[in-house]
Amino acid sequence: MLHFDSDYMEGAHPLILERLMAHNMVKTTGYGCDEICAEARRKVLEACGNPDSEVHFLVGGTQTNTTVIKALLRPHEGVIAASTGHIAVHESGAIEATGHKVLALPHHNGKLVASEIDHYIEHFYGDESFEHMVFPAMVYISQPTEYGTLYSLAELEAISAVCRKWQIPLFVDGARLGYALSSPACDVTLADLGRLCDAFYIGGTKVGALFGEAVVIRKGLVPRLFTIIKQQGALLAKGWLLGLQFDTLFTDDLYLKIAAHAASEATRLREALEKKGYRNYYLSPTNQIFLLLSPEELERVKRITTYTEWERLDDGQTVIRLATSWATLPSEIDFLIENL
Amino acid sequence: MLHFDSDYMEGAHPLILERLMAHNMVKTTGYGCDEICAEARRKVLEACGNPDSEVHFLVGGTQTNTTVIKALLRPHEGVIAASTGHIAVHESGAIEATGHKVLALPHHNGKLVASEIDHYIEHFYGDESFEHMVFPAMVYISQPTEYGTLYSLAELEAISAVCRKWQIPLFVDGARLGYALSSPACDVTLADLGRLCDAFYIGGTKVGALFGEAVVIRKGLVPRLFTIIKQQGALLAKGWLLGLQFDTLFTDDLYLKIAAHAASEATRLREALEKKGYRNYYLSPTNQIFLLLSPEELERVKRITTYTEWERLDDGQTVIRLATSWATLPSEIDFLIENL
Amino acid sequence: MLHFDSDYMEGAHPLILERLMAHNMVKTTGYGCDEICAEARRKVLEACGNPDSEVHFLVGGTQTNTTVIKALLRPHEGVIAASTGHIAVHESGAIEATGHKVLALPHHNGKLVASEIDHYIEHFYGDESFEHMVFPAMVYISQPTEYGTLYSLAELEAISAVCRKWQIPLFVDGARLGYALSSPACDVTLADLGRLCDAFYIGGTKVGALFGEAVVIRKGLVPRLFTIIKQQGALLAKGWLLGLQFDTLFTDDLYLKIAAHAASEATRLREALEKKGYRNYYLSPTNQIFLLLSPEELERVKRITTYTEWERLDDGQTVIRLATSWATLPSEIDFLIENL
Amino acid sequence: MLHFDSDYMEGAHPLILERLMAHNMVKTTGYGCDEICAEARRKVLEACGNPDSEVHFLVGGTQTNTTVIKALLRPHEGVIAASTGHIAVHESGAIEATGHKVLALPHHNGKLVASEIDHYIEHFYGDESFEHMVFPAMVYISQPTEYGTLYSLAELEAISAVCRKWQIPLFVDGARLGYALSSPACDVTLADLGRLCDAFYIGGTKVGALFGEAVVIRKGLVPRLFTIIKQQGALLAKGWLLGLQFDTLFTDDLYLKIAAHAASEATRLREALEKKGYRNYYLSPTNQIFLLLSPEELERVKRITTYTEWERLDDGQTVIRLATSWATLPSEIDFLIENL
Repeated sequence: MLHFDSDYMEGAHPLILERLMAHNMVKTTGYGCDEICAEARRKVLEACGNPDSEVHFLVGGTQTNTTVIKALLRPHEGVIAASTGHIAVHESGAIEATGHKVLALPHHNGKLVASEIDHYIEHFYGDESFEHMVFPAMVYISQPTEYGTLYSLAELEAISAVCRKWQIPLFVDGARLGYALSSPACDVTLADLGRLCDAFYIGGTKVGALFGEAVVIRKGLVPRLFTIIKQQGALLAKGWLLGLQFDTLFTDDLYLKIAAHAASEATRLREALEKKGYRNYYLSPTNQIFLLLSPEELERVKRITTYTEWERLDDGQTVIRLATSWATLPSEIDFLIENL
Repeated sequence: MLHFDSDYMEGAHPLILERLMAHNMVKTTGYGCDEICAEARRKVLEACGNPDSEVHFLVGGTQTNTTVIKALLRPHEGVIAASTGHIAVHESGAIEATGHKVLALPHHNGKLVASEIDHYIEHFYGDESFEHMVFPAMVYISQPTEYGTLYSLAELEAISAVCRKWQIPLFVDGARLGYALSSPACDVTLADLGRLCDAFYIGGTKVGALFGEAVVIRKGLVPRLFTIIKQQGALLAKGWLLGLQFDTLFTDDLYLKIAAHAASEATRLREALEKKGYRNYYLSPTNQIFLLLSPEELERVKRITTYTEWERLDDGQTVIRLATSWATLPSEIDFLIENL
Repeated sequence: MLHFDSDYMEGAHPLILERLMAHNMVKTTGYGCDEICAEARRKVLEACGNPDSEVHFLVGGTQTNTTVIKALLRPHEGVIAASTGHIAVHESGAIEATGHKVLALPHHNGKLVASEIDHYIEHFYGDESFEHMVFPAMVYISQPTEYGTLYSLAELEAISAVCRKWQIPLFVDGARLGYALSSPACDVTLADLGRLCDAFYIGGTKVGALFGEAVVIRKGLVPRLFTIIKQQGALLAKGWLLGLQFDTLFTDDLYLKIAAHAASEATRLREALEKKGYRNYYLSPTNQIFLLLSPEELERVKRITTYTEWERLDDGQTVIRLATSWATLPSEIDFLIENL
Repeated sequence: MLHFDSDYMEGAHPLILERLMAHNMVKTTGYGCDEICAEARRKVLEACGNPDSEVHFLVGGTQTNTTVIKALLRPHEGVIAASTGHIAVHESGAIEATGHKVLALPHHNGKLVASEIDHYIEHFYGDESFEHMVFPAMVYISQPTEYGTLYSLAELEAISAVCRKWQIPLFVDGARLGYALSSPACDVTLADLGRLCDAFYIGGTKVGALFGEAVVIRKGLVPRLFTIIKQQGALLAKGWLLGLQFDTLFTDDLYLKIAAHAASEATRLREALEKKGYRNYYLSPTNQIFLLLSPEELERVKRITTYTEWERLDDGQTVIRLATSWATLPSEIDFLIENL
């Protein structure tokens, strides 16, 4: 039985484990105030071409979204997100638990559209009772989105421009950022994110690390973020574990290289399945494939691999997701193609 | 210039002021632990035919919604509401500020539909990742709704049945409850609310009182609600002010009588305007009238009365709201009809 | 039986009720955006000699404390208060419910001491792990304190200087402010508060109003406070009720005059009781008297008046509080003195 | 230079890294719903002799405290803790950020005393205004305490009895639990904790793991704790990392064995330093040593090892903490003894 449920089923890239073994017994200062983290921060900022930012390492995605959003908003403010955004659906109300509303706008293949954000905010201020409503005070998007789709550079620039027009921060959830950056379909770079966003994070958990997300945030945007991270229970005692992983991932472009492997294997699978008559439900150019299956097709899949059930349609068909990862073997893809 | 902006523009019914004058210098125990409140509670429960409930008096609507919802939910739980519900739109994120998500479902003329609530909850439990989502753990509706529409008894019974099926409480926002109960179009009584809901409130602010909302809640549903009310800053020091007002409103059916006046004057206005060619936008059988106006019609209205602008449509037309109240004079309605 | 339990047992000063009667049927804009409120704000600011402030009217004390403190703090910050402070003890955790810690320092007759605040903050920054602790980011004091004692001008200036040294706001709870300002023992004026504090409030509930607290806050200190007030359920629909009361209280010095009456009657009672051998437990120069009573003395009091039990001491003695108010009749004091 | 700052300076016990290497590329289900976690849970419960409990694996201590306490309390409730408790001092207000007050009682060498808890709660209900105060609704203690001291079995039984008398849960923070359990001075076993507490956790971060805390909680005490963990950002995607570590630690008593090593090396150091005239500040029978040092002594220490500064006394002396760990080499202790 194969496993294509998700991209966080394996541990870490072997180079990370190797360094972990080597460093394991070295006594190291706690909470990320160590040399390894300092070096990792330096490398991440260099990759982003963004020396005027801070880097903070956190453990997981929900934790990162919650901490950054809570840190950025005042009590009466909310965060704009796509109705399909991770914070709007799959984080058990973590944002609301910090006191803030997620202002969900309709999605377009998982994406927000700049003009609709602009219209929403404009309309908000035009409403007679806007002072009785939640202020739209930041924008949250995911790259790639929860549907595996990508913001183009033009789209991102447009959203950034709207945010700057209204003077609110733009925050990008990059839990799977590597799989976007390394996709041939993607024209957005790390440097673009550094230039256009106020905060974003580079996901490690799903791209080669055991766990870990690297937040890149405009210097001075959130005073005392360290303490807020602690308050959220998001400060790892052995913070060097995070530094070590990101230092490895950002040495010799490892992060992008391993992500590119996942994207190209996914492309190979997608194209082969299309030839065989399988239907894509969303067109994702990243490591995720969304298939629309008849009951018979679903049975066939079930015999070969595990997957994530995405949605059951009323007509009896099912949408499933298959995800490759940095660790996917070409032979697994071959086997899938042959047997589906 | 007339004023039909809302139903909370005047003070209190004269009988209330009279009693206030009479009681003003009588030294009375604080926080609602007095005889007047006890008597008011007795009368409210009698009107609801619901001796197995508690009554708590709070000052305003947002405060009441927040306190009751916060008291009923555990951390991971949210409240289902219509997308047009007051808690979903016009309370500045008060529910989220207590840590809970408002789960907005599509509205139908401002109303939720029982089968859609049922479907939502069923679908929730069918979702593979439902344990990563906010639990739908109570239902909030308004009677009348924010659009002035009414739940029929059959509709309310169906929603109540869904709530009982899933074992979650049903809470009814009755900020304008009097204008529903007294509408000839309404077949829901106070006793029905007492029977079908787990908590609801009887709005005083908009129906004859200076301020005040009477929460009727199933006994034992929320232990220590008094302390939670205090925590929300919702415990009035001179609680007898609330008791005195509700005692007056629930003596000799004053509450229903003065509300009926508002509803019948609104009906008179609505029918007269229809005859004159004005178009209703929603059909509200309560004290609110929603008109769809051309720019010329709007100009005409502006010269005679103030109003609440509800929505500007893209085609240049405007929806406005006119609201009568317990204090509206028939002569004001006459004047409006003649001059519009 | 007399009643000296507290200073919020009567309704409002007759001049307020008179104006309420007069204005009751006048249609008035909601939420405090009306002319009466505007005029009341003007008068309050004039009394404070502080044109560079905003005034907001809220309903009650806990509500006001919670709203202002929540509005001023960022997530990782807490508020310094005396261990006996109202927010530290008697508000059911309202401040914590907004996510913030009350940092309780030892009290001295109910008061904080400037040097101890300074030492606490200095020590905080000297602690190795201060970034794992709650930042002391504002100071809360009450004038008069919960023990009826007063900050002298010198004490208040010293606390203000410490706050400015550390660049954190000073907030004064003035729920009983009138009884301080009008005490001959008090050398702090409204203008001093305006000059030395960043925010304070003038309590109406306990000094002549039915309810209501007027917050005076440095302009620009809290953007969008209106919306945060709404979020806390603290925005009164008929806001003019608050404006009308404060406008009356701040016309012809009514506020100070009626408070002075309470203070002088309390002094008369205190001195008479002392002559009779009763012992004061705290020395309060305001409208509150704290007596230390033997069981026999307590029995005698019980037969004549109700009171608030403050503390039962281990030696069998009891501390009780008697409170006069703006409405206390001289004849009641005479009767008490004669019969105790 | 040696490093005795803390017990979380090294990585994981080599057996854990070995297993991590072996399992790294095995595709495993996410969020702790895997076989390794199931087996680890079985072993932990067996060690606790407590089949009627659930086990949840979280990443760190603050996160665990916050999640469990938030899950157990209703809005108006608070948690009793020693004034020196980790949640009261060093978690940046994490508990308050979930809306709850930490009710700090005086400590005795870092410990709470059963009779004082009982007295506090009794006194609370005796207070006239207790319904305006935060309900003491659970008790939090640490074993060992933040001062390295231990609750004896008798003390723990007494506290447990008080909690049961008042029907509130007892929660034990076991971030360093191994160092208590393995101390010869400790007569409390895991089975005792299972019997006397409603929830406690077994710290991995400081006792042999890279990170991780195992919560043992009475079955049914908190419905849907999984979702609350997710909401707190405390659900690790690759949950098997936690299961694998605890499975290793609870195989062949590894957890206790490696902790015993730290405790015995600390004892050796403590006794040798005492002979040399050094003064202990607290008497901790665990892996922590608290020394009271003159300026000259401090200079000597600084030249040999890093440490944690605990407190600077007014008389110029300093209290420092040295901590051994499962990884401390006997030769390091020898070197320290020789050179101090």
